[in-house]
Amino acid sequence: MTRWRWVTRADCVISGPLSPGSVVAAGGRCGRCPCRAPRGRRALRSRCSAAGGPRRLRGHSARRHRPRRRHRGSRRSPAMAKEGAQRAEETEQMIDKEGGREANEGGAGGSLRAGDAKEMRAVVLSAFGGLNKLRVSKKAMPEPQEGELKIRVKACGLNFIDLMVRQGNIDNPPKTPLVPGFECSGIVEALGDSVKGFEIGDRVMAFVNYNAWAEVVCTPVEFVYKIPDDMTFSEAAAFPMNFVTAYMMLFEVANLREGMSVLVHSAGGGVGQAVAQLCSTIPNVTVFGTASSFKHEAIKNSVTHLFDRNADYVQEVKRISADGVDIVLDCLCGENTGKGLSLLKPLGTYILYGSSNMVTGETKSFFSFAKSWWQVEKVNPIKLYEENKVIAGFSLLNLLFKQNRGGLVKGVMDKLLNLYNSKKIKPVVDSLWALEEVKEAMQRIHDRGNIGKLILDVEKAPTPLMANDSTETSEAGEEEEDHEGDNENKERMPFIQ
Amino acid sequence: MTRWRWVTRADCVISGPLSPGSVVAAGGRCGRCPCRAPRGRRALRSRCSAAGGPRRLRGHSARRHRPRRRHRGSRRSPAMAKEGAQRAEETEQMIDKEGGREANEGGAGGSLRAGDAKEMRAVVLSAFGGLNKLRVSKKAMPEPQEGELKIRVKACGLNFIDLMVRQGNIDNPPKTPLVPGFECSGIVEALGDSVKGFEIGDRVMAFVNYNAWAEVVCTPVEFVYKIPDDMTFSEAAAFPMNFVTAYMMLFEVANLREGMSVLVHSAGGGVGQAVAQLCSTIPNVTVFGTASSFKHEAIKNSVTHLFDRNADYVQEVKRISADGVDIVLDCLCGENTGKGLSLLKPLGTYILYGSSNMVTGETKSFFSFAKSWWQVEKVNPIKLYEENKVIAGFSLLNLLFKQNRGGLVKGVMDKLLNLYNSKKIKPVVDSLWALEEVKEAMQRIHDRGNIGKLILDVEKAPTPLMANDSTETSEAGEEEEDHEGDNENKERMPFIQ
Repeated sequence: MTRWRWVTRADCVISGPLSPGSVVAAGGRCGRCPCRAPRGRRALRSRCSAAGGPRRLRGHSARRHRPRRRHRGSRRSPAMAKEGAQRAEETEQMIDKEGGREANEGGAGGSLRAGDAKEMRAVVLSAFGGLNKLRVSKKAMPEPQEGELKIRVKACGLNFIDLMVRQGNIDNPPKTPLVPGFECSGIVEALGDSVKGFEIGDRVMAFVNYNAWAEVVCTPVEFVYKIPDDMTFSEAAAFPMNFVTAYMMLFEVANLREGMSVLVHSAGGGVGQAVAQLCSTIPNVTVFGTASSFKHEAIKNSVTHLFDRNADYVQEVKRISADGVDIVLDCLCGENTGKGLSLLKPLGTYILYGSSNMVTGETKSFFSFAKSWWQVEKVNPIKLYEENKVIAGFSLLNLLFKQNRGGLVKGVMDKLLNLYNSKKIKPVVDSLWALEEVKEAMQRIHDRGNIGKLILDVEKAPTPLMANDSTETSEAGEEEEDHEGDNENKERMPFIQ
Repeated sequence: MTRWRWVTRADCVISGPLSPGSVVAAGGRCGRCPCRAPRGRRALRSRCSAAGGPRRLRGHSARRHRPRRRHRGSRRSPAMAKEGAQRAEETEQMIDKEGGREANEGGAGGSLRAGDAKEMRAVVLSAFGGLNKLRVSKKAMPEPQEGELKIRVKACGLNFIDLMVRQGNIDNPPKTPLVPGFECSGIVEALGDSVKGFEIGDRVMAFVNYNAWAEVVCTPVEFVYKIPDDMTFSEAAAFPMNFVTAYMMLFEVANLREGMSVLVHSAGGGVGQAVAQLCSTIPNVTVFGTASSFKHEAIKNSVTHLFDRNADYVQEVKRISADGVDIVLDCLCGENTGKGLSLLKPLGTYILYGSSNMVTGETKSFFSFAKSWWQVEKVNPIKLYEENKVIAGFSLLNLLFKQNRGGLVKGVMDKLLNLYNSKKIKPVVDSLWALEEVKEAMQRIHDRGNIGKLILDVEKAPTPLMANDSTETSEAGEEEEDHEGDNENKERMPFIQ
């Protein structure tokens, strides 16, 4: 049986490493790539690993769009490789169980047709815990309530907070089972009562208070934004969380101005890349970033100074700028809070916008949770007074769904779309994944393997398993890099490693 | 012996209570007062209390410029009245001992003439403690070092922080004896090497790292600013600390914009009035203020909502604005920090810029210090993240003298002078005091008796003691309000109470 694999990459060997502000379309082309291949996903057919034969890519585009070479020996211990294989196997089962029928019936995508269905596919989290708590299941088709829009989803954003939700590692977690996901893009399919300003067929992106990872969502009109004609659905799903978070931190909380300096952790992530782009819209802003070393080549031009995420970034920053930085954006928490505060210039602002250090494994770790909580320095305001410092927290989800600031965010979104239309910002898409591939996608973001945003593409068919990811390959004891005669092929398949 | 009293007031019965944005010139005229009397101090001769006769004011202006009626029975217990009398007696001795000779030789003011003196008068704090640690003494004439300006001081600002300095109630207090004071206005008398941009004779205002309360100061050129032609020296001495603090908190730290709301404690004080004026430069800003009740009539038009300083302002604000305010400016500290944080809207900013609650008596109180320190809520950044809040501290003195941000403050001062020149802001002067009257001035600010700024006028002669302030009066057991036949006179002399 031949299966299909959709490969999209965040860079392109034709153009080399990304230049500052360069972004990559969903199709894998960077903006200055001479390749005239059309936008969108590109199909590279390969032989199914289950068939036992060597993988073989076909077609011109496969040769021209060569993904970044995988970092040799990084990030995956043998144990992890085995875990990955097990996850892939689970996905295989999930596809067979949940999505296989539609795939056989309807081909790639396998979604139900709009308007005539009582059910839809969705990613369901059955209970808080590990990746095995996620399944693609049928759910009742939602219908819009008053003030809501019904959206036929094309793509969903995957964020680090989704991992924390899966673990139940958040404040006041909701009850399970639930459908995760906080943002999506798609097409308006129906309007609830009293909804104005939208029509059926509008291309939109939206925030959703859970339930985004599904074929259809309903959400209040205040969280929905029309998207520009030239913005793809993948870009649109990558846009709201990352860019609104970055913009509000830089301009609403911290008041970024000409000549200032910014330190951002996880500079290669979705928010990090949005921060870098927004900083480039202000003259003479210095951006210090931390990121895993293997990303440095790809993102080095998007920030001014780049440090390894395991380096002593406090010393590195002080070596370059003795009196520190104006803004520290911290998504890690724990001991980084004290470090960040120590790096602030007078009148500088430290903003905590995540606590990814609390996630150390697949399931919730009370040890890491407690460590992060207690390591974080509690701040005496009198000390802030003496040092002229500002400390802030920013949670876009709480702002939207607990604190009812949809109107404020709408104003920010208008400004961001102006910046997008004037080509000053553009979301960086790391990769597209089928709903059934959510486990691999989550593992990738957990491993900090992404550059830019991970997208769940609702119409995408799951990628078939590859030989070098199967347990058979592991049993053969072969290193992937030692394969002969198929290197090109391997490089094109970095997402099932 | 007849002595002279200089009376300046912060309002005028001709114009009635101050309207929003109204300010009062050093001469006691509000901007819309029809009186054409010249600016500047106005001498109202009275019979000396020592002569035993009734006081009598003379002259047209005395009748037209009637000071605000003293709040009946407020703020001064019999014990405080006695303390006040004792302080006045000390001042009397101080005048005789320190300033009397010059007064006899040179008339009112009694300052040494410029250029030919090796000594100058200055307020000296002999040790940290109560008011009795302050004396006017002769000090060696300072000479400007490289990069410094020598200024012949005309007026000095008195701030709450000066009380904390007197008590030694500050972080890393300097050694005594010292000359207090952080701001002044005057005329450039000499230039140190490499000073550019100033000439001898320039009218200036300046920040000084201590030593401002003297006839002559030297300070680095980066802390000196030329003053507009129509700005009096008293206004200029009232300008730097209050307006720079207010401006930087509102626009550098908190990013005040149209439609926002601000809560400011001590709304009648120098910073409070500056905050109110700066808020009025932005459309549709709501200002909540707390102040002692007896000030409400005078300042009610400068803020939107006014509460008594002893009222439960949290409930009062929430009654008007259920979701709180955007900016809280707190100079009190202690339990007000927690209250202020609780009042913040999402994305709101709490700024601590003083800790006047630590000052409860004349000398340092370790109890109140410890109480304020421990009562202040230490903030967990994760809580800020969940609530989308910002907490900041602002200390202008540390910014200037410890953190070397003179250049930044210079830029702020340029903006403020533009606002002054376009008549959008104007310092509110509460009262002028001779150097020898520093104790009474300090007691007035300690008692929160002031509306606007207290100024030490270096050329002003000390006010003579009045009958109703002498111990004889206290011994007579008479209430001031019960005096007959001299009520008008008493109302004009609110500063020696």
